[in-house]
Amino acid sequence: MPDWTRGVHHDGSIMHISNPLPALHETVTITLRTPANAPINHVFIRAIVDGEYHREVMTVTEENTVAHIWTGELKLPQHHVDYCFKLMTDEGAYYYTARGMHRSDSPDSDYFTLLAGYEAPEWIQDAIFYQIFPDRFNNGDPSNDTQAGEVERNGLKSTKPNWGELPTPWLKSRSLDFFGGDLQGIIDKLDYLQDLGINALYLCPIFTASTNHKYDIQDFWQVDKHFGGNEALVALRKALDERGMHIILDITTNHIGNRNPWYLDAVENPNAPTADFFDYDPDTGKIDTWLGVPLLIKLNYKSQKLRDRMYRDADSALRFWLNEPYSIDGWRLDVANMTGNLRENQLDHEVWHEMRPYIKGEHPQAYLLGEYFMDGTPHLAGDELDASMNYTGFNIPARRWIGGEDVGVADGKPWGDTELLPSSAVAEQWLRFMAAVPYAITLQQFNQLCSHDTTRILRVAGEDKDLVRAGAALLIGFPGTPCIYYGDEIGMTGGKDPDNRRCMPWDESEWDCDMLDYYRNLVSIRKNSSALKYGGFQVLFAEGDLLAYQRHTPDQTIIVAVYRGPGESPGYQIPAWQGGLEDGAKLKDLLSGRTFTVANGHLPLSGLQHGQALLLELQQ
Amino acid sequence: MPDWTRGVHHDGSIMHISNPLPALHETVTITLRTPANAPINHVFIRAIVDGEYHREVMTVTEENTVAHIWTGELKLPQHHVDYCFKLMTDEGAYYYTARGMHRSDSPDSDYFTLLAGYEAPEWIQDAIFYQIFPDRFNNGDPSNDTQAGEVERNGLKSTKPNWGELPTPWLKSRSLDFFGGDLQGIIDKLDYLQDLGINALYLCPIFTASTNHKYDIQDFWQVDKHFGGNEALVALRKALDERGMHIILDITTNHIGNRNPWYLDAVENPNAPTADFFDYDPDTGKIDTWLGVPLLIKLNYKSQKLRDRMYRDADSALRFWLNEPYSIDGWRLDVANMTGNLRENQLDHEVWHEMRPYIKGEHPQAYLLGEYFMDGTPHLAGDELDASMNYTGFNIPARRWIGGEDVGVADGKPWGDTELLPSSAVAEQWLRFMAAVPYAITLQQFNQLCSHDTTRILRVAGEDKDLVRAGAALLIGFPGTPCIYYGDEIGMTGGKDPDNRRCMPWDESEWDCDMLDYYRNLVSIRKNSSALKYGGFQVLFAEGDLLAYQRHTPDQTIIVAVYRGPGESPGYQIPAWQGGLEDGAKLKDLLSGRTFTVANGHLPLSGLQHGQALLLELQQ
Repeated sequence: MPDWTRGVHHDGSIMHISNPLPALHETVTITLRTPANAPINHVFIRAIVDGEYHREVMTVTEENTVAHIWTGELKLPQHHVDYCFKLMTDEGAYYYTARGMHRSDSPDSDYFTLLAGYEAPEWIQDAIFYQIFPDRFNNGDPSNDTQAGEVERNGLKSTKPNWGELPTPWLKSRSLDFFGGDLQGIIDKLDYLQDLGINALYLCPIFTASTNHKYDIQDFWQVDKHFGGNEALVALRKALDERGMHIILDITTNHIGNRNPWYLDAVENPNAPTADFFDYDPDTGKIDTWLGVPLLIKLNYKSQKLRDRMYRDADSALRFWLNEPYSIDGWRLDVANMTGNLRENQLDHEVWHEMRPYIKGEHPQAYLLGEYFMDGTPHLAGDELDASMNYTGFNIPARRWIGGEDVGVADGKPWGDTELLPSSAVAEQWLRFMAAVPYAITLQQFNQLCSHDTTRILRVAGEDKDLVRAGAALLIGFPGTPCIYYGDEIGMTGGKDPDNRRCMPWDESEWDCDMLDYYRNLVSIRKNSSALKYGGFQVLFAEGDLLAYQRHTPDQTIIVAVYRGPGESPGYQIPAWQGGLEDGAKLKDLLSGRTFTVANGHLPLSGLQHGQALLLELQQ
Repeated sequence: MPDWTRGVHHDGSIMHISNPLPALHETVTITLRTPANAPINHVFIRAIVDGEYHREVMTVTEENTVAHIWTGELKLPQHHVDYCFKLMTDEGAYYYTARGMHRSDSPDSDYFTLLAGYEAPEWIQDAIFYQIFPDRFNNGDPSNDTQAGEVERNGLKSTKPNWGELPTPWLKSRSLDFFGGDLQGIIDKLDYLQDLGINALYLCPIFTASTNHKYDIQDFWQVDKHFGGNEALVALRKALDERGMHIILDITTNHIGNRNPWYLDAVENPNAPTADFFDYDPDTGKIDTWLGVPLLIKLNYKSQKLRDRMYRDADSALRFWLNEPYSIDGWRLDVANMTGNLRENQLDHEVWHEMRPYIKGEHPQAYLLGEYFMDGTPHLAGDELDASMNYTGFNIPARRWIGGEDVGVADGKPWGDTELLPSSAVAEQWLRFMAAVPYAITLQQFNQLCSHDTTRILRVAGEDKDLVRAGAALLIGFPGTPCIYYGDEIGMTGGKDPDNRRCMPWDESEWDCDMLDYYRNLVSIRKNSSALKYGGFQVLFAEGDLLAYQRHTPDQTIIVAVYRGPGESPGYQIPAWQGGLEDGAKLKDLLSGRTFTVANGHLPLSGLQHGQALLLELQQ
């Protein structure tokens, strides 16, 4: 590909679409940036309308010394419009899709996609999330603690270690070690969270269940009494409202716990009303569990009655909590990837598609977030979920750039990869997954450096806090909503589950206050930045130990550059011309205050420290 | 990417899948070929099962001096299983998907796909199709000819030129020039077709309509009397059965003609039973036409009654002809890309998905072929259509390699590209579209060099018959079923519609008999070749003016190499090691008899003539 092709850019952000959340039948203005020296004669938008090519001519409406802006209009008569660009040169046509530039044509799935009439949870783009594992965050009401011996499973009794002791390894505890964290504890720390800049909470499950993680749900309609019961959630909601904060809860749509009456009834009586809530193994005749785990019983969405209880009924599990007095702002759907899927019945698309209008009918701004450790993009076309936990699209590549460790490695399996991911591979994976969803969805994707299901980022980084800082900048700068896993901001570490679920220390002498300041600063920058919240995305550099990407709105351009190498960085030349930046353009690092100037088409970066991040704002 | 990665290969053919058409719950053996010198420590199959990663270890079960064969087993518990390969090396993992080799992960849509329990029309892989435009192929019964003046539309009267005169340009004829071809004419020429090796016919529409192309259907249940009526189809069926030949008919599911009683009734009476068979423009209130063409009235699949009449009823249009005495073998669905789609209602997936079981219930081996000038792959996942007219996946890149001309160019629009497509771009487009469908579907795709909707291939080639020969070899060698457009085999030429619909000459002095012999030979080679009919596909060379791809089954390997350059070719070195061929391997050209030998990992090809094709069979 000729060099000029690297400077062609479009994304579905406000930078290039006059209204990134258009109504059905609306006409939007679309722009494409090309290098000023590109040998382009004509540019056309090619959209798929009613299954047929629809073409719109673009014209140059702006230019500077390095870039031309081509502009065209496109009417959106359907909910989902795929489009690409055809660039005519003397040597033939080039096709620019979300998967890049080619000399030949590509399937529509590679195209850019605009959603029209999509009901977006618009608060998400302003959100800074904080993920809490409730038993381990803060104990606000010791009177409701799970006592030692209170829970018993398979002869093993629950324990009650002191706050701050390490979680007991799973083989010994079977998730029955309870530290006493609860919703009152969260209420008590809202000042702390607000000071950090947090404005949205994601709580791991809080409904009645027997383990500390509570993914073995016994009652979808009751907050666990050890977390304070339903009243505590009302109190939390009220406290959040006073601060203008949002909250999403975690619910498992894929399975329930084996102490759930739905299951117990079905086991006891093959004619129980809930008998068809489950699948029965064709070989053994036994009720199917989740991946063979006896604790977790797989739900069967061929059952119409199950669908009623889960999302169709006015008081169904998913609708109940969206209403007053709980009024939660959305759901994190646990094991979304497997929900509805078993053997020849693969009902996930059908379930999400049917569920969505029930949720949005209750609360149009509700956020539907699916857990996908793998590829969630097939469910992100605007008519199923609003976002996925973006493990494949952001988290895993970022973690593997910092520390190499593949998610599977913790289990010691030979398919785990422990080598650092090359910078180019990180950028390619980000872009491939981003290309698979409309950009309106990209801006809602749920990005994290770690979660209750992964090794802590500090451990991934080999306890190297400089690398964690690098990762935090990648997270805060990336399109999508950032979520901080509780304690990362004060330098908590931990290995695989349950070591990643240690108690949050509230003795500040145990905190890394520099890290806290750094996170607070990053959060503050993001909250005040249109480019980071709503902007487009273009990778400018992904070689050696440097990653640099550009975020842009009509009002602001920020280049995020992060160095992972040892010692002081060599002199990198970032091809700023590809981002449309002219020679002489000045960019100021919002973290260090240092200023850099574009010359000969490039932004020279040198002398970066190990783990240093730059948030380079273009000075107007 | 390191050089060794180019030698990694898998496809979904019998070469690499023990049963390419497995039943549901079947376990298949999967192989991957890697270069012997690749630094690979482990290989895993990673499949998506129930939405979760499922991994299988592969082991080396065969090796020669250049290749290792890794083997693993995979159970197929669902109808559609996506899978890729994870190759572990000391520098980290490589991921091999249908979109090639990467250092990082990709969305599932890039994966290979296996269909389990898919009802394939198995006769297709052995089929050599011949497309006939009935009015122009042969006049077997002059008594049924459309007479001059017999049809009148908008004051214009039909004409009856003599056989062999050029079709009248559309602006003048409005498709009312009739030459008298009919079904008896086809019956009379079945010996000719069988001698050519043809064993399947695709007829352009034959149902009652007013124009010569008959896409303006008036009656789905009557063969046009000018083609001989329903009895003539019975006679044709009988004649085909005697020869073991198949036939598919062309039906427009997207629209009907404006003389169809369904439409006339609805225009006359807003409460007519067929009133909801149509859409009404929200601005004008008028019934929607196809792209504004008054002749063609858009059908509205929101109407349940329309669905009944089209495919649900036992005597519905699509089921009627599958039954005796007509017993057709499938449908070519005209304007499949737009069927069911208008404005906010995009019902194509829903319509095909619902239609399929009705068709397969009637005739499990029926071939459901959709017309897609653009991307049809979203409908080729095994539960909608069996194939698309493979314009984007084969035809257009092949045509543009031969003659440059983009399909749109004929209309003189600025988005038409007239430059020759680089060889690399052709290969990339083929591979991108192939990656989007299961390989079982690839082997059923409907490949052509031209059709009644495009400029003839000889005209595209600038009347250069050598280039047509090159194209014919690409067609015959390509995975999917080849279809010859009537007359191409005797050197017919013609520009855009209707010049591409000239009368077939039956005076043999007008034939290019060398071309006919060449086609007959190619067809014969294919019919006797497992590699060309069922084999896998790997591009070995796509640079300069040479394209070379390998087809392989366990029994046969053929490399198809085609040269489009001027004069004698330079010396090309085909990297045979990438195809797993060892030094010393001998390949014999099935066309010229010449033998070539692999040395130093490469197959040296030189001295090819302009337009020459080689079908190089590996000598065992």
